[in-house]
Amino acid sequence: MEEKLEKSRIDRQFDFIREIDKEKFITRQTFLSDAKRRENDAEHAWHMAIMTLLLSEYANEEIDVLRVISMLLIHDLVEIDAGDTYAYDEEGKQTQRVREVKAADRIYGILPEDQGKKLRALWEEFEEAETPEAKFAHVMDNVQPAMLNAHTEGKDWIAKGVRLSQILERNAHTAEGSQKLWDYAYTNFIEPNVKTGKIKDDTK
Amino acid sequence: MEEKLEKSRIDRQFDFIREIDKEKFITRQTFLSDAKRRENDAEHAWHMAIMTLLLSEYANEEIDVLRVISMLLIHDLVEIDAGDTYAYDEEGKQTQRVREVKAADRIYGILPEDQGKKLRALWEEFEEAETPEAKFAHVMDNVQPAMLNAHTEGKDWIAKGVRLSQILERNAHTAEGSQKLWDYAYTNFIEPNVKTGKIKDDTK
Ligand SMILES: [Ca+2]
Repeated sequence: MEEKLEKSRIDRQFDFIREIDKEKFITRQTFLSDAKRRENDAEHAWHMAIMTLLLSEYANEEIDVLRVISMLLIHDLVEIDAGDTYAYDEEGKQTQRVREVKAADRIYGILPEDQGKKLRALWEEFEEAETPEAKFAHVMDNVQPAMLNAHTEGKDWIAKGVRLSQILERNAHTAEGSQKLWDYAYTNFIEPNVKTGKIKDDTK
Repeated sequence: MEEKLEKSRIDRQFDFIREIDKEKFITRQTFLSDAKRRENDAEHAWHMAIMTLLLSEYANEEIDVLRVISMLLIHDLVEIDAGDTYAYDEEGKQTQRVREVKAADRIYGILPEDQGKKLRALWEEFEEAETPEAKFAHVMDNVQPAMLNAHTEGKDWIAKGVRLSQILERNAHTAEGSQKLWDYAYTNFIEPNVKTGKIKDDTK
């Protein structure tokens, strides 16, 4: 009865499904549209998945929508162990990769091997940001918080003293996924907040 | 310049994307795995979307995974206006359909017409629960809270005095979407909690 010592496939799947409930406790910096509480990783992923359904028509290249959505749904799971590394935390970003790889080993290791490998490969694809799908996923990951920041009158930008050069650096490749969405986000979410000083213009 | 009077396609898409942020404020009854706070609709949808990626192999019939995930991601948006109707709130359930149709008119009406129609049709498909995709989506919608309830030692079942007959009635069609997942959920999440009295057995 050797199999009895090993967990069954479905048990491993549900162990993972229970484990990832913890993503709901990982808080990001962005404020929700009521400007009262900060968003968590699960809410962020859900929002971007729907955005992908609606905005895929603006991708520069043809994309596999299910692949982008799958990538976005799982791309922050490593933060269950590694925590959220704030986009402009230069110190945290130096150790981020090491912390996240260790997390990926543990978390994706809970799944049956075939599924663990598949989801982990999707996470690596997101990290490498080279395929059309990964590039588009990064557009979502950058535009969604910019939209919420703009909607909350720059609450988090002001709190952190975010500078325009930081935003431009973070978005250096956003137009590679979607020129149209980057132009829209710049014109509607970023530029007006530079004009009113909610984002500090340090580029002049 | 008649077009200027009408919102552009992309403006309507972002109006909708901003509007649905409110789903993060709609609280359900289920407690999260830390048993401290209740889940919101966005977290619930995110969780079920990943479950679908992992568990689609157990569907009774072949299913289009992107279609199920899309359905699950949007199926609770009407609750932004109509609120969450608790599964065992018989009074609330009588007015639920009317409240939710009105909500669907307003919320899907924000989108460009083609996309509003498409998403609304997905919601109606979920409600009708007749296609293989809708049936599987309902499996997710029933199994996910049962799993969390079991994980939190029946916290919400105890708080509400939930009876086995109510659970069986709610799950009358779950096996139609996936016999395997219904059997698993019954054996692992429900039966043990009937034995310990966390779910009241009123079926004998
Ligand atoms: Ca619901």
